[in-house]
Amino acid sequence: MAFVDILGYTAGAITSLTFLPQVIKTWKDKSAKDISMNMFLIAATNEVMWIVYGVLLNNWVIIATNTVVLAMSLIMISFKLRYK
Amino acid sequence: MAFVDILGYTAGAITSLTFLPQVIKTWKDKSAKDISMNMFLIAATNEVMWIVYGVLLNNWVIIATNTVVLAMSLIMISFKLRYK
Repeated sequence: MAFVDILGYTAGAITSLTFLPQVIKTWKDKSAKDISMNMFLIAATNEVMWIVYGVLLNNWVIIATNTVVLAMSLIMISFKLRYK
Repeated sequence: MAFVDILGYTAGAITSLTFLPQVIKTWKDKSAKDISMNMFLIAATNEVMWIVYGVLLNNWVIIATNTVVLAMSLIMISFKLRYK
C-alpha cells in the first residue's frame, strides 16, 4: 500500500474518533453548559448527508466513518439536552 | 453536475463550518470549562494529516476544507488555554 493510502486510512480512522474525548469528558463531568448544541446538530445532519453520499457511491469507508461520528454526535446532543 | 456530486460538495462545505457555532459560542461566553482540549488537539493534528493527504493528491477541495477546520481547531485550542 502506498504512503498516501496509509495516510488516508489513518487520518480517516482518527477523524471518526475526534468527538470521543468530548463524549468521555461530558459523560464524566455531567456538564455541557459550554458545549454548542448547534455544532452537534450541524454535525449530525452533515453525517447523514455523508452516509447518503457513501451509500450512493457504495463506499463503505465513508459509510462506516460517518456512522461512528453520527453516533457520537447524537450522544452529545442527548448529553446537551440532559446536562444543559 | 450529478446529484451525488452536488451532495458531496454541499456536505464538504458544511463539514468545514461544523466548528464555527462552537467558536462563536465560546467567544461570546468566555468560558470553555466543558470543552475537551483533547478533542481539538486530535482534530488539529488530524487536519494537518488531511492537508498533507490533499497536497499529495493535489486535491484542493481536501486542502481548503481542512485548512478551514484546522484554523477553527487552533482558535478553540487558544480559547481553551485562555478561558479554561
